[in-house]
Amino acid sequence: MAVESNDAIPISRITPDTPLDFPLGTLLNFYLEMDPLIEGQHDITMVFDAHPFGHLNLEVRDSLKTGTRMPGAVPRDPEDDYSDQAIQARQAFIKGQTGANLKHISSYSFDPHVTQGNIEHFTGAAQVPMGFAGPLLVHGEHAQGEFYVPLACTEGTLVASYNRGMKVLHRSGGVKCAVVGDNMQRAPAFVFDDAASARRFADWIVAKTEDIRAVAEATDPFIHLKYIDYYLAAKFAYLRFNFTTGDAAGMNMVGKATFAACNWILQNCDVVEIQRFVLESNFATDKKSSMINMMRSRGKRVVAEAMIKRDVLLEIMDADTESIYYHGKVANIGSMLSGANNNGCHAANAITAIFLATGQDVANVAESSMGILYSELTPENDLYLSITLPALIVATCGGGTGLPTQKEALEAMGCYGVGNVFKFAEIVAGTVLAGEISLAAAISSLDWVSSHDQFGRNDPTSAS
Amino acid sequence: MAVESNDAIPISRITPDTPLDFPLGTLLNFYLEMDPLIEGQHDITMVFDAHPFGHLNLEVRDSLKTGTRMPGAVPRDPEDDYSDQAIQARQAFIKGQTGANLKHISSYSFDPHVTQGNIEHFTGAAQVPMGFAGPLLVHGEHAQGEFYVPLACTEGTLVASYNRGMKVLHRSGGVKCAVVGDNMQRAPAFVFDDAASARRFADWIVAKTEDIRAVAEATDPFIHLKYIDYYLAAKFAYLRFNFTTGDAAGMNMVGKATFAACNWILQNCDVVEIQRFVLESNFATDKKSSMINMMRSRGKRVVAEAMIKRDVLLEIMDADTESIYYHGKVANIGSMLSGANNNGCHAANAITAIFLATGQDVANVAESSMGILYSELTPENDLYLSITLPALIVATCGGGTGLPTQKEALEAMGCYGVGNVFKFAEIVAGTVLAGEISLAAAISSLDWVSSHDQFGRNDPTSAS
Amino acid sequence: MAVESNDAIPISRITPDTPLDFPLGTLLNFYLEMDPLIEGQHDITMVFDAHPFGHLNLEVRDSLKTGTRMPGAVPRDPEDDYSDQAIQARQAFIKGQTGANLKHISSYSFDPHVTQGNIEHFTGAAQVPMGFAGPLLVHGEHAQGEFYVPLACTEGTLVASYNRGMKVLHRSGGVKCAVVGDNMQRAPAFVFDDAASARRFADWIVAKTEDIRAVAEATDPFIHLKYIDYYLAAKFAYLRFNFTTGDAAGMNMVGKATFAACNWILQNCDVVEIQRFVLESNFATDKKSSMINMMRSRGKRVVAEAMIKRDVLLEIMDADTESIYYHGKVANIGSMLSGANNNGCHAANAITAIFLATGQDVANVAESSMGILYSELTPENDLYLSITLPALIVATCGGGTGLPTQKEALEAMGCYGVGNVFKFAEIVAGTVLAGEISLAAAISSLDWVSSHDQFGRNDPTSAS
Amino acid sequence: MAVESNDAIPISRITPDTPLDFPLGTLLNFYLEMDPLIEGQHDITMVFDAHPFGHLNLEVRDSLKTGTRMPGAVPRDPEDDYSDQAIQARQAFIKGQTGANLKHISSYSFDPHVTQGNIEHFTGAAQVPMGFAGPLLVHGEHAQGEFYVPLACTEGTLVASYNRGMKVLHRSGGVKCAVVGDNMQRAPAFVFDDAASARRFADWIVAKTEDIRAVAEATDPFIHLKYIDYYLAAKFAYLRFNFTTGDAAGMNMVGKATFAACNWILQNCDVVEIQRFVLESNFATDKKSSMINMMRSRGKRVVAEAMIKRDVLLEIMDADTESIYYHGKVANIGSMLSGANNNGCHAANAITAIFLATGQDVANVAESSMGILYSELTPENDLYLSITLPALIVATCGGGTGLPTQKEALEAMGCYGVGNVFKFAEIVAGTVLAGEISLAAAISSLDWVSSHDQFGRNDPTSAS
Repeated sequence: MAVESNDAIPISRITPDTPLDFPLGTLLNFYLEMDPLIEGQHDITMVFDAHPFGHLNLEVRDSLKTGTRMPGAVPRDPEDDYSDQAIQARQAFIKGQTGANLKHISSYSFDPHVTQGNIEHFTGAAQVPMGFAGPLLVHGEHAQGEFYVPLACTEGTLVASYNRGMKVLHRSGGVKCAVVGDNMQRAPAFVFDDAASARRFADWIVAKTEDIRAVAEATDPFIHLKYIDYYLAAKFAYLRFNFTTGDAAGMNMVGKATFAACNWILQNCDVVEIQRFVLESNFATDKKSSMINMMRSRGKRVVAEAMIKRDVLLEIMDADTESIYYHGKVANIGSMLSGANNNGCHAANAITAIFLATGQDVANVAESSMGILYSELTPENDLYLSITLPALIVATCGGGTGLPTQKEALEAMGCYGVGNVFKFAEIVAGTVLAGEISLAAAISSLDWVSSHDQFGRNDPTSAS
Repeated sequence: MAVESNDAIPISRITPDTPLDFPLGTLLNFYLEMDPLIEGQHDITMVFDAHPFGHLNLEVRDSLKTGTRMPGAVPRDPEDDYSDQAIQARQAFIKGQTGANLKHISSYSFDPHVTQGNIEHFTGAAQVPMGFAGPLLVHGEHAQGEFYVPLACTEGTLVASYNRGMKVLHRSGGVKCAVVGDNMQRAPAFVFDDAASARRFADWIVAKTEDIRAVAEATDPFIHLKYIDYYLAAKFAYLRFNFTTGDAAGMNMVGKATFAACNWILQNCDVVEIQRFVLESNFATDKKSSMINMMRSRGKRVVAEAMIKRDVLLEIMDADTESIYYHGKVANIGSMLSGANNNGCHAANAITAIFLATGQDVANVAESSMGILYSELTPENDLYLSITLPALIVATCGGGTGLPTQKEALEAMGCYGVGNVFKFAEIVAGTVLAGEISLAAAISSLDWVSSHDQFGRNDPTSAS
Repeated sequence: MAVESNDAIPISRITPDTPLDFPLGTLLNFYLEMDPLIEGQHDITMVFDAHPFGHLNLEVRDSLKTGTRMPGAVPRDPEDDYSDQAIQARQAFIKGQTGANLKHISSYSFDPHVTQGNIEHFTGAAQVPMGFAGPLLVHGEHAQGEFYVPLACTEGTLVASYNRGMKVLHRSGGVKCAVVGDNMQRAPAFVFDDAASARRFADWIVAKTEDIRAVAEATDPFIHLKYIDYYLAAKFAYLRFNFTTGDAAGMNMVGKATFAACNWILQNCDVVEIQRFVLESNFATDKKSSMINMMRSRGKRVVAEAMIKRDVLLEIMDADTESIYYHGKVANIGSMLSGANNNGCHAANAITAIFLATGQDVANVAESSMGILYSELTPENDLYLSITLPALIVATCGGGTGLPTQKEALEAMGCYGVGNVFKFAEIVAGTVLAGEISLAAAISSLDWVSSHDQFGRNDPTSAS
Repeated sequence: MAVESNDAIPISRITPDTPLDFPLGTLLNFYLEMDPLIEGQHDITMVFDAHPFGHLNLEVRDSLKTGTRMPGAVPRDPEDDYSDQAIQARQAFIKGQTGANLKHISSYSFDPHVTQGNIEHFTGAAQVPMGFAGPLLVHGEHAQGEFYVPLACTEGTLVASYNRGMKVLHRSGGVKCAVVGDNMQRAPAFVFDDAASARRFADWIVAKTEDIRAVAEATDPFIHLKYIDYYLAAKFAYLRFNFTTGDAAGMNMVGKATFAACNWILQNCDVVEIQRFVLESNFATDKKSSMINMMRSRGKRVVAEAMIKRDVLLEIMDADTESIYYHGKVANIGSMLSGANNNGCHAANAITAIFLATGQDVANVAESSMGILYSELTPENDLYLSITLPALIVATCGGGTGLPTQKEALEAMGCYGVGNVFKFAEIVAGTVLAGEISLAAAISSLDWVSSHDQFGRNDPTSAS
């Protein structure tokens, strides 16, 4: 008998004559038909034969929870928690507890069941205003042509500012975009008796990489284990699994694959004794800005670059390329001193607004907003400007991308679904660059030489 | 004649006999009645007398834009860009250009005019599912009692996870919260001939702080200039203005106040010659994670702390406090090595979901998601756990807080409007701590001693 | 009776009629004439009256150490550990234990007693070869004219390289230097019940700064407390005391002053209960590179800047200013990505070699080697180049500056003794800049356009 | 005719009939017998046939320097700059220019010619006092047994403090040491037209790694190219070559090998056009502290760890393990906030003192002083303490290790010469750990509970 699905298997079906055949690292679900247990703590013992491991004995102490909910708990419906009835019960509960009116939160245009897998305790929807900026003219390896970019935000001037930057880019010939890295990580840590053991373990991992890859990749058809980095400190070995995950952001995929890999490691490591293990050790580093992501990428590493024509910038933005260039030099030193994770102006704005519109995991703004701005001034005072986003976490399928407004927003860029994630990453980076030009120009147009006799003549406020 | 409002003043009304009286640093708007200019570049000369500056002469070259829009530009209505007609024109345009269906994006429950000041090119709304977690029991200096926290996100399990963490906190006696810092910044840079001049300038700024404060605080009744830090490098002086801004996030307020202050500085600095000036230098550091924000705060610096009972954690989360504690130790070293801006688990998740629900500027997740997690284990194996958020940018008025669903979400916590921002900050921090417990417990419940003979007995997957 | 010196006071001299009058925060030494104690643990109780504190009772348990030394311990002479006899005993011991010959280590030209206070277990001297580079033409606020800089190191080419850079500087008109900051720190931490208490403590510290300053400054005539920064996290308050310390590096002075201040704080803080206290918390940050030192200085913050003439650089270094400038741009991005604490070439080399020659605490290279390099290219392709050293720890008296060769090295620059530390800091910074030019030119002269048909014509090695 | 040595070849010996056979990437030296050139600029043209490159034409413009030295230049002797005569001339010159006495600097016990290759302008020696601490009991993989560690420094109490820490370690059973990484780097950068080209270049480098390894390893019998990391940003590709270099520190070796590799790359890269190239890009990062070295090691990555017995610490240091442990927790958060590159106490002290004594390149203290301290408290309150040094740059041959006092110091540990570098690295790390215990105990013994009624009883100063 082979495992064919994730369905639970009645234990009675497994006997010495009809054993269960399954690959290592598989999650198996069994059930036992018996009378209901009473509430409280129970000792559970499971005895079985497994080849080639022999006779095994697993003992667990667990307690049967009563299901009695805490007073004041948010109401749930175990049958269908996304039914109108369940939702209205929650809305009534929140109103009752807080006195708040949920009129607008209760207004949404979709069947709440579509949010299953995206949210629990569904009570309504936040409505975030959305505008479109464009056309953004992209010369990417995947995105080619003009795009209208949906931006959902509540900060006035942002959409106008991006729109203006896109105009500058368009008139300068467009923005060149390229994805230069693709990586998604999970980083478990293993604890040993001492540092030398940790190093021996790391050597063993290197030797066993092919086995580990096979185990990890068996967990999902779209996952590929690129390589495993390791970092040693004290008596710890930090492994950083680097995967590609197709068009999904892939956090869940890599979690599952890494867990299977660790399971295999724990079962097979025979060179040293593993004292402890944790599945994540802040080396991934998910939803955090970090130097490791800055260097070694997380999600997509994308570069957008353009040659901004001096006269175009002057005409559209009233700003000189030289001023932007000099501002960048001052801001570079500012960033080094302040320890900022981005030496540019405001990558976070574009990224957040697009993430929000398109159903990305907006919390990934934490790492996705890192960036490196770089510029050069040509002899003709045209401005080469580029932004490198080392950890842009994007998806065109999975997560929130299939929700109604989010899917429409992706479709407006021709980016919904499989095969589009690189294209989408390029458009995001191009939009970020548009915003860098626009804000840098706005700041720089306030920049003027201030010799004393000019103060009378040049009211600084005249520059705005 | 005194300036009484921002209304533009006809130049003809200002004569030697009826001069205009205005405070320094005021923005004045004038207009001149004359025949329309033709398109193209014009030289504008303005000659006037100002006391005590004397006879002044301002010359600007500017060009009259044709107003011809780029082909493919997103349609705008100069009369009322938030009218149904204007919005429908844009929707039709986007559909036409991209082939996308905007059915759901076009569905919103409010009058679009409310979004004026929050977005341009309004075309519809992103609908992001929202759930409530709670009750969160807070013992703050401002937030007292039980709160239900609105979370808008698309990552499954998040709301459930926060809800579970809140249950642990509640059963452990609640979470203690305190705002320990309050700062909003703008950081201009000044360029000089050499480093010594920059230092002399900084000394002058220190001497003139009271004057600068007066000028800056005159720009807004709610703004207070706490202090000005300066940082010297090369021939640059970076000033970092630190304000409090009441219950608004205050980015615009501090921009305006700093601009007025810089204006005063440029007009009055007589100890060195200022060569250049930029209003922002990446020392603020807005929408970026940075070490300066980690140390010297941005927005609110908030701490949430709790004593987690060991038996409560075991019962609710199947995890031991000792495991969470040890995981924290491993993750601490992991964070130091990886250069992460947060040694905890996932502060970004709670912050993003609340920001999104309540109309905060979600792009501020970039800096707000920094954090310092700290824990101690008592002799009884109870767990003291605290999170410090050094740069939480929050508001209870202004920005997107007044939008319909956003306002309702704030009201559900009794946090809408003036006087609530510290309370709101405490609730956010308490929610973050709930999530730290919940995720750390989930990771740690996979943590087990792995002596060889146990591998057979303890299927790792049984721990999940 | 007043305390007049640090001499120990016989307890018998203090009676109710002849009380001891002493200022708070004073270290008092007493002794009691009595029979010798036997080895082992003793309980010591001291009961006394102190105004205004009343009747006090101090109990300590301490043990009388036998003085028996560990087998294999390095021999010491309690009478005079710097006598020839003691030193020869140690030399013989080390030779005996290790078989090493200490012929050269045993050769030194000074009376070993001069090293008292600089080293224990004196066994000889390391002889590090020293060369002089120069003349360095300095236009500082304190250093004026030509200097010959002593460099002790073992890395071939270094002295030649600095010498060459100084030639470039000299021919370009010299190097401008300025000390723009002066700070020495100690950073204790205080632990409280919760975060709100830590904040109340910080507020109290702010209110009591004048009292604390008085106590701290009473410990040394040359110390001045500039300000106290505080940083709050979890239930901790980190205080960072910022002093000036005259011409000494001042680590010991600030330790003593901060200890006195903390003592006063512990005795006088009545707004919250202090749970624990540590005198140093890694916020100083002594002998570490850190972002706080990068921003807020440690020791001297010094800038050296020069305008390098293009033709001078070409003639002396065979390198073009444009190449150096471009190399700087590439290296800037490199530094940001790699998380380096210096975006220049090799400040550590000059600093270490001068520190070693002049008796500085060479371990301070850890923080002193941080730096910010900044350059601009003029329209004539001359190169403005500056280095900012944010944490240069230097002294012209105290520490190792008075040792024989070290004092001579300082004297060769006219920098030995009181009143010279700013001058010395400027010379160090000027030397660093000379090295930046020299190495950048060497790297950049390898920089060439590499279109394929040029490979035959331009052997890359021809550029060296 | 094959190239057999580095000797220069007369051009006349190379003819079509007797061509020169040489491997790619070889440095060839030729000379042409002719009359002396006059001073000034000359155009040099070299025309030759090379297979398979064909007819090549190399043109260089260079100038013949007059050799006239700058007035005030430090005197040099082109024949033998290390002769007594040359040295005395310099000493006289420095005395004449500065008025300084160089009596002690002029005293050294060795033939100055031994410093050739270590210093230029040799004028004398710095004498730095040296003491020995020990015995340090090491259980390493390479160092086994008791060692007496030479420490050259000028900071009083250091040797005593390390000695005391070694005593604690010895009585606790010794220190366990292991080298867990070994890497030396050089990091060139290549500049392209755009980001996509940079990525294609990186892919090509990956494909050609074996060829590059062969070229690089041909430059030195002791060098091994482990792997090449690459980092992409803007239009740059940063390559980081990772080598092992035997018992030498290897900076020169890796420079030469990387230069040969880059030469090969420039000659052979046919997939994209390389616009510019720099041999070092601040990604190495030599003589700088950096996050890349923290993560990915530079020099040796070494861990020292010990289990400190509570009673031993109490007896020797009057400090409790619990206090040290708690201090470490406070200091950890302090380090994270302050952005320190070491969360321990003072690794720089031991490293500098040993480097100085043993002829290491002391400027490498900049990166070598980074560290990660980690501790655990056992149920019996014994303290597991470990230090990880991620970038310890050490050598037992080459550089300054062969100088007279330096060689003796290495020999005193049995560490001079080939085959000892891992042993030496372990001893350094063990010494660092001794100092961590000693200083942490000193700080922690000042740590006491300070409830109000205790202030009278516990004079804080009694603890010192």
